[in-house]
Amino acid sequence: MCLEPCPLFLRMPEELFSYQQLFDFAKAILQKIGCSEQDAETATKVLLSADLRGIDSHGVARLSGYVRLWEAKRINTRPSLKILHETLSTAVVDGDSGLGLVVAPYAMQIAIDKAKQAGTGWVSVQNSNHFGIAGFHAMMALENEMIGIALTNASPLVAPTFSIERLLGTNPICVAIPAGEEPAFVADMATTTAANGKLEILQRKNGVAPLGWIQDKEGNYSTNPHELKAGGALIPLGGDKEHGSHKGYALGAIVDIFSAVLSGANYGPWVPPFPAYIPMPDEQPGKGIGHFFGAMRIDAFRPADEFKKHMDKWIRRFRSSKTIKDQQKVLIPGDPEREMEEQRMNNGIPLLKPVIEDLKFLAERWDINFIE
Amino acid sequence: MCLEPCPLFLRMPEELFSYQQLFDFAKAILQKIGCSEQDAETATKVLLSADLRGIDSHGVARLSGYVRLWEAKRINTRPSLKILHETLSTAVVDGDSGLGLVVAPYAMQIAIDKAKQAGTGWVSVQNSNHFGIAGFHAMMALENEMIGIALTNASPLVAPTFSIERLLGTNPICVAIPAGEEPAFVADMATTTAANGKLEILQRKNGVAPLGWIQDKEGNYSTNPHELKAGGALIPLGGDKEHGSHKGYALGAIVDIFSAVLSGANYGPWVPPFPAYIPMPDEQPGKGIGHFFGAMRIDAFRPADEFKKHMDKWIRRFRSSKTIKDQQKVLIPGDPEREMEEQRMNNGIPLLKPVIEDLKFLAERWDINFIE
Repeated sequence: MCLEPCPLFLRMPEELFSYQQLFDFAKAILQKIGCSEQDAETATKVLLSADLRGIDSHGVARLSGYVRLWEAKRINTRPSLKILHETLSTAVVDGDSGLGLVVAPYAMQIAIDKAKQAGTGWVSVQNSNHFGIAGFHAMMALENEMIGIALTNASPLVAPTFSIERLLGTNPICVAIPAGEEPAFVADMATTTAANGKLEILQRKNGVAPLGWIQDKEGNYSTNPHELKAGGALIPLGGDKEHGSHKGYALGAIVDIFSAVLSGANYGPWVPPFPAYIPMPDEQPGKGIGHFFGAMRIDAFRPADEFKKHMDKWIRRFRSSKTIKDQQKVLIPGDPEREMEEQRMNNGIPLLKPVIEDLKFLAERWDINFIE
Repeated sequence: MCLEPCPLFLRMPEELFSYQQLFDFAKAILQKIGCSEQDAETATKVLLSADLRGIDSHGVARLSGYVRLWEAKRINTRPSLKILHETLSTAVVDGDSGLGLVVAPYAMQIAIDKAKQAGTGWVSVQNSNHFGIAGFHAMMALENEMIGIALTNASPLVAPTFSIERLLGTNPICVAIPAGEEPAFVADMATTTAANGKLEILQRKNGVAPLGWIQDKEGNYSTNPHELKAGGALIPLGGDKEHGSHKGYALGAIVDIFSAVLSGANYGPWVPPFPAYIPMPDEQPGKGIGHFFGAMRIDAFRPADEFKKHMDKWIRRFRSSKTIKDQQKVLIPGDPEREMEEQRMNNGIPLLKPVIEDLKFLAERWDINFIE
């Protein structure tokens, strides 16, 4: 959950593109690498939801990364998605090495369909790839008057408390909860002190990271964002043991286990890395990366109208809370991303120069005009 | 999750009692205030699991608090527990103002029974009281080859990021996951930088709190543990915005909403306080306090043997992780509590002098011999 409009980005030169421009371009690229028109549309919608919501690290900036994974034969653009096992309220899905951007909405839809019948639906996914932002998938539940949950494991970058090894990804948790007149509550957060995207920005800028975001390869706190590529690690939410980093570690671990040990995907240090140039781990205890989705029908607990009335009351009480002097208002999870989405849908999506260069390279490589 | 054997306690004078001594005493007191023998046994088992596991703030130290709530007519020791609404995988339970120590195991058992039929079970509870440690309830799932989840809201003590108001409890999350040859993974954690129990100890000792645990009534960080009773607040996991306190705030909020907005209990600042001397909030948007329980049958996802084999691999890999120089080994969530439980079951449970005085007072008040 990025509660601020990523100020780090705003200090770098950028150019504005319309949602439709980027949509048409990304969709065309995905079709070029073999996606069906429908899959390309789904994947592009997921990808661009990140750009709209201000989580720029997970949007079109990653398009070339997905293409490289396809070139490395680690992504199958014509996957045969299927349910391996199911009960009334659960399923395990085989993503068949597909784009996570396609596998995840398929699996989340199964969770929603299960919830229609059984009250709740829970789907663990193996053999997938990076699924974009967790928020998109969890929010699919909202239009069905359900609470949505989306978790995923990811490339190992995080050291457990007391460790110098990178054994967990930034393993995000998203929970989306519908309200009545108020906008939905959407908490979408990495289980680290800072999301990797924020580090990537600091790396490009040679910036200084706040103490408590990263440690060097010996486990000393560092403010140098490049330490991450020199054997260092991200730090679990909490920062240090005295402030609860063991809780952030436990949260990341729960996400890993629900996503991968429950589904038969790879876990811990064996999760395949996102960058195609990083070799695969020596060992593969499972298949691909793993996700976990949940959908809970509100009226499986109490009448939806009653629930929404109380969610509105909850949201209004928190939003009107007295603030610390000189601080901004108290935010509801999802507020900044929703405001960003409105603003960018109207005014355009800003892209950084290196991202534009990357897209131009893709355009040339695949013989597509880069945004007329 | 207290990953260390609460060193703060060890510096204060204490006396050892056997599990059976404390069990018989607490059970007798609970029967005196009207609990049936069966309810008194259940409640005592839950209460003492905290003492065994080293979460001393939630054990017999609270017995007199429950009695005072009963005297204030806020606890009904002869509750009629019932399901208000249910689907194949969900239920809402009315705790009828019962002891949370009795209501919670009843509700968790419903979640487990639902999971047997539907793969998973999810129960939200209204009209309850403090339920002891979340760990006890979540761990009920383990003997059924299920993953267990337990959440509860609690007396408002925590200020959301940017706020000076206490709008959330320390709202714990517990997730218990079975393994094969290895002991289970049990993460049981407050969604704050430090659990309130740790602050209570510092208050008794006039100790100094680490910066990042509490803020004063104006929202400044403070090391004075007494600020909490002078209008200050506990701080969400993360510590400050730069290190992700908005994530801790969101986690506490999710626990509040699942436990109370979904069930019809009180939420946010309207959660009834545990100490009977604190007046009830002016407004009551729901009934009592709320809990949320989940049970997921492992074999609703994959064969339990396969899962357990991989959980063992997960646990062994993390436990054998290379450590930062001079640091202790990397722990698996639940390790310290399990070791403490073994040790205290054999050697006895240490109680602080003020806790012993409190129990002696109860013994006199209810005409029971205090531990022969």
